[in-house]
Amino acid sequence: MSKAYDTRQTILDMAAMLFHSQSYTAVGVATICNQAGVSKGSFFHFFRSKQELAVAVLDQLLQQINDTLVSRAFSQNLAPLERLDRFVDELYKFQKAMTKQYGHLPGCPFGNMAIEQATQDEVLRGKADRCLDALKARLQQTIEDAIENGDLPPINAPATADAMLGYVEGIQLLAKSRNDPGVIRKLGPAIKTIRVDNTG
Amino acid sequence: MSKAYDTRQTILDMAAMLFHSQSYTAVGVATICNQAGVSKGSFFHFFRSKQELAVAVLDQLLQQINDTLVSRAFSQNLAPLERLDRFVDELYKFQKAMTKQYGHLPGCPFGNMAIEQATQDEVLRGKADRCLDALKARLQQTIEDAIENGDLPPINAPATADAMLGYVEGIQLLAKSRNDPGVIRKLGPAIKTIRVDNTG
Repeated sequence: MSKAYDTRQTILDMAAMLFHSQSYTAVGVATICNQAGVSKGSFFHFFRSKQELAVAVLDQLLQQINDTLVSRAFSQNLAPLERLDRFVDELYKFQKAMTKQYGHLPGCPFGNMAIEQATQDEVLRGKADRCLDALKARLQQTIEDAIENGDLPPINAPATADAMLGYVEGIQLLAKSRNDPGVIRKLGPAIKTIRVDNTG
Repeated sequence: MSKAYDTRQTILDMAAMLFHSQSYTAVGVATICNQAGVSKGSFFHFFRSKQELAVAVLDQLLQQINDTLVSRAFSQNLAPLERLDRFVDELYKFQKAMTKQYGHLPGCPFGNMAIEQATQDEVLRGKADRCLDALKARLQQTIEDAIENGDLPPINAPATADAMLGYVEGIQLLAKSRNDPGVIRKLGPAIKTIRVDNTG
């Protein structure tokens, strides 16, 4: 790895941690540089703005989440409805681990960015939304598999996937507002009860 | 009404509008004073801090929402499950009207504050959480009424109320991330399908 690659990666990892543990708005470029041990000149060599950095942070997070909790949850080795249970259980474990590490429950990084920046920054709203859409695609495939298996009736798969995505974002929001990962463990399994009919 | 009351109320209304249309973090005391036509001295006569102002804003919002959309939705004149449909329809109309007014969909003010401040400010996290709990209480009463009527099976009413609250927060989050109130109209009615069993 080149030194330039290392420096860029150090900035990215520090920003990801600071944005998630505090918030995008709360953390400035000066703080990121300070914590990463990098000069401002070096920062702006790699990223034109905090916004550009945030886009790179969200891309990296989506990749990391896809490679870990999402790939464990949406394994073809699991029956479709078991994937949904596994998904909410993975989210619970993730938020519980982060709560321990940060001292408070940070919530979903994509949902956080959408809520924080949708009224302010169209680029970050769009980016957060596309990350959420990537999760929706996994849910939709799972629901389609469940319908094919006969584990779910012939419901509206795209709309039900959207509803389930809303639900997982919402229970993470409640968990954050209560600072309690147990909310996700308790409410998570009910994801399987959500249905949007084809008439919708 | 006294002049002091008017000034305090002007600050409160302006802050409520600015926090909701932008965000709590994005809007400083200077901006609020400027937009409200009030001096900083006057501001700090009424509120010791932006945090204290935000607590008063959330209290006022909860009262306003209770007096309008919540009281229309949770009317005893409606059958229990009709109240749930009415609640999500009221949320859709509210977010649609706000989108027209602000130029972008602002989301739930309580959910926004929870997401924005839960990692930063324990007072505002707790306040936002208590506002969300007030909505949960209406949902729980509705579910209990529905169980008594036989419109719902004997499910776990408090946990199902929590799950439904998570769902309405989540679909408002998705609507905000897509800047589209239609998300709430499309996904809202599925709130009635959510169940948490008594075994949970």
